[in-house]
Amino acid sequence: MPSLFPFSSCPSVGIFGFGAFGQLIARHLAPYFSLLVHDRNADVSASAGQGNVRCADLVATAACDIVILAVPVSQMASVISDISSHLRPGAIVLDVGSVKIEPARLMRAGLPDHVDIIGTHPLFGPQSARAGIAGLKIAICPVRGQRFRRVAAFLRRTLGLNVFVVTPEEHDREAAIVQGVTHLIAKVLVRMDPLPTRMTTASFDLLVGATEMVRHDAPGVFWAIENANPHAGAVREQFFALAMEVRDQLRADQSELMPLAAV
Amino acid sequence: MPSLFPFSSCPSVGIFGFGAFGQLIARHLAPYFSLLVHDRNADVSASAGQGNVRCADLVATAACDIVILAVPVSQMASVISDISSHLRPGAIVLDVGSVKIEPARLMRAGLPDHVDIIGTHPLFGPQSARAGIAGLKIAICPVRGQRFRRVAAFLRRTLGLNVFVVTPEEHDREAAIVQGVTHLIAKVLVRMDPLPTRMTTASFDLLVGATEMVRHDAPGVFWAIENANPHAGAVREQFFALAMEVRDQLRADQSELMPLAAV
Repeated sequence: MPSLFPFSSCPSVGIFGFGAFGQLIARHLAPYFSLLVHDRNADVSASAGQGNVRCADLVATAACDIVILAVPVSQMASVISDISSHLRPGAIVLDVGSVKIEPARLMRAGLPDHVDIIGTHPLFGPQSARAGIAGLKIAICPVRGQRFRRVAAFLRRTLGLNVFVVTPEEHDREAAIVQGVTHLIAKVLVRMDPLPTRMTTASFDLLVGATEMVRHDAPGVFWAIENANPHAGAVREQFFALAMEVRDQLRADQSELMPLAAV
Repeated sequence: MPSLFPFSSCPSVGIFGFGAFGQLIARHLAPYFSLLVHDRNADVSASAGQGNVRCADLVATAACDIVILAVPVSQMASVISDISSHLRPGAIVLDVGSVKIEPARLMRAGLPDHVDIIGTHPLFGPQSARAGIAGLKIAICPVRGQRFRRVAAFLRRTLGLNVFVVTPEEHDREAAIVQGVTHLIAKVLVRMDPLPTRMTTASFDLLVGATEMVRHDAPGVFWAIENANPHAGAVREQFFALAMEVRDQLRADQSELMPLAAV
């Protein structure tokens, strides 16, 4: 790997939060970095402790060259407050939340001036990353400093990700539709369980596949998508209003067609 | 091809309706049969007239060994009435409509006793059949006579389709969910155009793929799914009721979380 960071030959990475996504990050970064993980809600010693990944206390994890916040968006403010005074000057702090405006605001307000800040949103999860992450998308939102360029280059060249740089505002506006609609539809389909498995069409199979990909997401993911994205409310209202429009149209069609059908 | 029908070595097939689906049928049957096509709404001479496929008048088309009704479900009653007296004794009549109870009832009531009747529903369309039809699903509903077994064997062995035999009632109950839900979701998503193309997730891509597969379906397909399937109304009401449930749940969550978010 080319040396992409102005750190020692093998920069240390500290990961806060070792849920499904924190573990996915660790798996893909372990070949390139020395990793420390810390999760205040879980004993991570069983999952970590393999190869390059070691569990550590908050102070040691916060003192790494690169610090990744893989905690739910709802816990970001308190984690930022906990780690802020332990961050090393020149460190890079990244988050991986599924919304970007609010984490960017919290990190800018709560992290010391001597660290670079980058918002990221890997547009994939444990389900979609099963067959590897090469070619998958990640959004990068520069918040403070210029080293997002090196991070983007690493993600693109070394991990093979499809990287695009956007503002938190641009991100949240598009993500509100992409994730909002996906999760709303999945919530409705999950309530229709059990769905047919025999008389299925290719398009229905795609819908079920979409639902299966997100139905096991951590509850915090849905919460963040629906509540921490300022554009989510409008998309949700639009989605339900359009659904009602389709329902009303169908009802009108039916009453119009009733006499014909009776012929 | 093994001789699957008790007809001449190359049985004649008459196709009524030469829309997107009639053309798909013709393309896949042309290697095995001599085909006549008739469409009362369209001049099919340009599309037909190639290889084994010739356009013909109603009487000649109805006099084939095998007659396939590829007309919209809404026109089935009048086509049955038009062709009934021209059918040859021992012929097999099939429909390919996306509902089965109503076409089966119409064919049983309107076709002479001297023909076999089979309801079929190919669970694919021009979009999903682009890469070939091998492995795709088709439902077979025996309505009159035993020759559905030979037809099923041909579809399975020669065309490579995944064939299952069900009653019209079983078919419509499952199809109401499979097709009803797919088309309702597609109708909502099409109204959200233009959808994001950049910040997309794998699950969102599947949703868009599902929508693209059905958005160009003939309007009659949606009409039949929503109005000619006796189970469609209940599925539709369930879908919209569940959507409202999700909306109300989200609204309740939001008002509960409001004080927390303000902290």
